[in-house]
Amino acid sequence: MISQTAEYALRAVVYLARIGGGPAVTEEIAEITHVPPGYLARILRDLSKAGLLTARRGVGGGFALAKPAGTITVWDVLEAAESGIGRIQSCPLGIGEHGASLCALHQLLDDVIAAAERSFRGTSIQDILMSPRKSKPLCQTLATTGLRVKGKKTE
Amino acid sequence: MISQTAEYALRAVVYLARIGGGPAVTEEIAEITHVPPGYLARILRDLSKAGLLTARRGVGGGFALAKPAGTITVWDVLEAAESGIGRIQSCPLGIGEHGASLCALHQLLDDVIAAAERSFRGTSIQDILMSPRKSKPLCQTLATTGLRVKGKKTE
Repeated sequence: MISQTAEYALRAVVYLARIGGGPAVTEEIAEITHVPPGYLARILRDLSKAGLLTARRGVGGGFALAKPAGTITVWDVLEAAESGIGRIQSCPLGIGEHGASLCALHQLLDDVIAAAERSFRGTSIQDILMSPRKSKPLCQTLATTGLRVKGKKTE
Repeated sequence: MISQTAEYALRAVVYLARIGGGPAVTEEIAEITHVPPGYLARILRDLSKAGLLTARRGVGGGFALAKPAGTITVWDVLEAAESGIGRIQSCPLGIGEHGASLCALHQLLDDVIAAAERSFRGTSIQDILMSPRKSKPLCQTLATTGLRVKGKKTE
């Protein structure tokens, strides 16, 4: 139900949040998040256009969070990457008499999408980073690949 | 969040349930559900393979529900059309130490998908037809196009 593009966008934003907001270049983010660089470049452009990231060229440049991770929700990232998650506003079959009143099939589908929207709006990227769960997002890739990207190795 | 294929499959099954289980030929179902016939044919094959529909060739043949609409859930149709809705069983990045323990990002996504699964498993095609909502699934197309397909017109 969550598209590849949405998942990749979330990984990228979570990574930038984990390194204090960035900046990081596309190749670095791609390696850590396991996303093909060309695909990621398009996603990062979309996130920038939506005002979630800033982009700076040149040495020391790259993509950075445009605001604190606590003020960016999962929903914001999904909307920026994919224009929302497809709430059903009116009859998809164009049945005129339905208007904004959905039939039971489309109401069920929209109820499920609405519940997802509530969860995503209620969770910030900071919430995800601060979760007490044992497994941390991107942990192993940060611990190994991440240090290699920076040109350092701990072992 | 609900794919086009899933939505089309649900329309087809709901239509067959509305006409008492069928049978109906692909062209008829395509016209009523507003689904391109070639695309629908593939979906109907998948629903048949999954045991939700029976297919019979020749005069009076077509696709029919293989069991009562009250015993077919929305979930059954989604699974048949798309192999489920993508529960996250283990770390999509292949981070070995995570194993079956998801990080907060993937746990959030899976929680949302799990809630959707509960809703879809708890709703049968019969529930959708029997809903007291004012707008009925496929109502206008049934009232107009449907009768034309059968070679009759009420006006």
